[in-house]
Amino acid sequence: MDRRGCVEGIDERSGTEEAHRGEPQKEKVEEGNMAELRQNVLTREWVIISPERAKRPDEFARRKDAEPVLPKYAPECPFCVGNEHLTVEELFRIPKHNDWKIRVISNKYPALSNRGERIRRIDGIYRSMSAVGSHEVIIEHPLHNMTIALMGREEVADLLRAYRMRYSAIRRDSRVEAIILFKNHGEAAGTSISHPHSQLVATPIVPNQTRTRIEEAIRYFDDTGQCVCCRTVRDELLAKKRLIFQSKNFVAFIPYAALSPFHIWIFPLRHASSFEEINDVEIKDLAKCLKTVLAKLYYGLNDQDFNYSIRSIPTRDLHAEYFHWYFTIVPRVSKTAGFEIGSGMYVNTALPEESARFLRKVKVPK
Amino acid sequence: MDRRGCVEGIDERSGTEEAHRGEPQKEKVEEGNMAELRQNVLTREWVIISPERAKRPDEFARRKDAEPVLPKYAPECPFCVGNEHLTVEELFRIPKHNDWKIRVISNKYPALSNRGERIRRIDGIYRSMSAVGSHEVIIEHPLHNMTIALMGREEVADLLRAYRMRYSAIRRDSRVEAIILFKNHGEAAGTSISHPHSQLVATPIVPNQTRTRIEEAIRYFDDTGQCVCCRTVRDELLAKKRLIFQSKNFVAFIPYAALSPFHIWIFPLRHASSFEEINDVEIKDLAKCLKTVLAKLYYGLNDQDFNYSIRSIPTRDLHAEYFHWYFTIVPRVSKTAGFEIGSGMYVNTALPEESARFLRKVKVPK
Repeated sequence: MDRRGCVEGIDERSGTEEAHRGEPQKEKVEEGNMAELRQNVLTREWVIISPERAKRPDEFARRKDAEPVLPKYAPECPFCVGNEHLTVEELFRIPKHNDWKIRVISNKYPALSNRGERIRRIDGIYRSMSAVGSHEVIIEHPLHNMTIALMGREEVADLLRAYRMRYSAIRRDSRVEAIILFKNHGEAAGTSISHPHSQLVATPIVPNQTRTRIEEAIRYFDDTGQCVCCRTVRDELLAKKRLIFQSKNFVAFIPYAALSPFHIWIFPLRHASSFEEINDVEIKDLAKCLKTVLAKLYYGLNDQDFNYSIRSIPTRDLHAEYFHWYFTIVPRVSKTAGFEIGSGMYVNTALPEESARFLRKVKVPK
Repeated sequence: MDRRGCVEGIDERSGTEEAHRGEPQKEKVEEGNMAELRQNVLTREWVIISPERAKRPDEFARRKDAEPVLPKYAPECPFCVGNEHLTVEELFRIPKHNDWKIRVISNKYPALSNRGERIRRIDGIYRSMSAVGSHEVIIEHPLHNMTIALMGREEVADLLRAYRMRYSAIRRDSRVEAIILFKNHGEAAGTSISHPHSQLVATPIVPNQTRTRIEEAIRYFDDTGQCVCCRTVRDELLAKKRLIFQSKNFVAFIPYAALSPFHIWIFPLRHASSFEEINDVEIKDLAKCLKTVLAKLYYGLNDQDFNYSIRSIPTRDLHAEYFHWYFTIVPRVSKTAGFEIGSGMYVNTALPEESARFLRKVKVPK
């Protein structure tokens, strides 16, 4: 199978469901349209897939009247060119001279500080830790109204290189146990500054959610000798029906148990447990894959608000056989409410296979 | 100590921090104002307490201009009196005659259906379950613009009795493994119909989040011979500084590792693992406690949007020594973004002790 740029050529028929081979696609989708619970094999979390409550895929688009038209330059924006004095400590810029393309700075109001010692306090059931770690901002582009979907591929590659550099530098800080790289795009995604930027938070503990997922992955490895993510990637490439885009080294798909409509995973095909292990060739290829997927959201869902995050293994456990880093992208098309708060479960009102088919068909400029 | 209605009499000084005894309250709060990570002993989840980014407590109030003035009766509302024909199957009403005070109905668009069999399907890594269970709506009051904070105590007690009746009936359904009772109040909390209502969802599986919390509670029990919730309640009653309100049988407080500003727990003082075990005396007392706490949010935070949920043990494990049911209330004053999605952690920009002090001082009508 040619893995390069085969988005238009993906076979709609499932490779795993023998009974359906040769049947027309339409019938299969109707059959799959029943409500069901699905379990995420990476997290063991159940999702209620409830397509009776579903909208058409394009109804998940951002409302046209919600669209703020951003200027190329905003005089009061601390991340705009010319306002560099409004930001605190600059860690580096690409390129090094004045006409920067990317700047990495310390967050002015850090959730965790890079000063001080890691001190754990235990007083009966009350356990605390000093708020040390890092909180950095990666300003992605000089233009106030730019977005990854519209950037040049080399610009996206530079951004990913900046991620890798900071990840690699901070991982060496002995106070740090986990690094979370993420992006909030749009107001519904929690952003307060609309200038395109990502963030990096390094924590002095392993988040409990990460711990339980790692434990799950170890258990799967012990049971099968396989990385559960490698297995998932293999099976999704065979099943085809949830694929969105595939490049030489990466594959983007809607998870079988997607927690919300258009929830997307991007996995490297090569097993690696930390984002830091991405090589130069893979960076270029991921730039293409990430830009394409985000462009599909941009054109297909009218620049819908989204969050993305890179999930890596905790910093002290590089090169593990049982865990595989990946991108998770969550368009903010549904709200969490009391049910989610009370159960940790989600209700997805879109069939993952339909969301994937919709995004596969969205044409984007090369 | 008299446990009844002692909200005004709560000692602001901590009973557990010997070093601070006798010091004036103001100094202590300033000391406590440092950023730190805190671990929730019930869930093992870490929260970043980041008061440097904090607002004043009253800045978390609902914006005055956001206030829709609801009518007492809305002709198009399916939950309003006279529109009973717009809802599907009615399960019961209180009282039984026509002038109902509470109605329990099947959800017109159920996430899970009460028809069909529980069927598990396993195909390699793909695990699914038929979407059976229950999804009911409890219409809390005939008036379209009523809210629990303003209801009479006996009305709230009736509502809690309706919860218990449905909980008890559905728990006997052998397809059901967990029951989630919850309420969405306001648009930010995910409600689509503003007429006051709660919901009950019964799932054919135990949500993974519930499973891991139960495992944690069992581990604590095995280590100490204690219920971790009983221990938490005892320690919070001693520490006093996070208490909001206390009645004869219940205590409301801000968790030590509150996941967001004004996150509240209400615990029964008597150990019981399921909400179904609440007795008639306790129902009356919980009505008083719940109404008071919600009134404090109503008057103190301008009727801020919130979710609440009742956490109980899975239906097959009644009378467990290691788990304790409780109410969790989450005012929707902050947004989740990429960091929360990527780590499962939360950043709370308010100091729990300050939020609690603010709510203790909010005066509400009896």
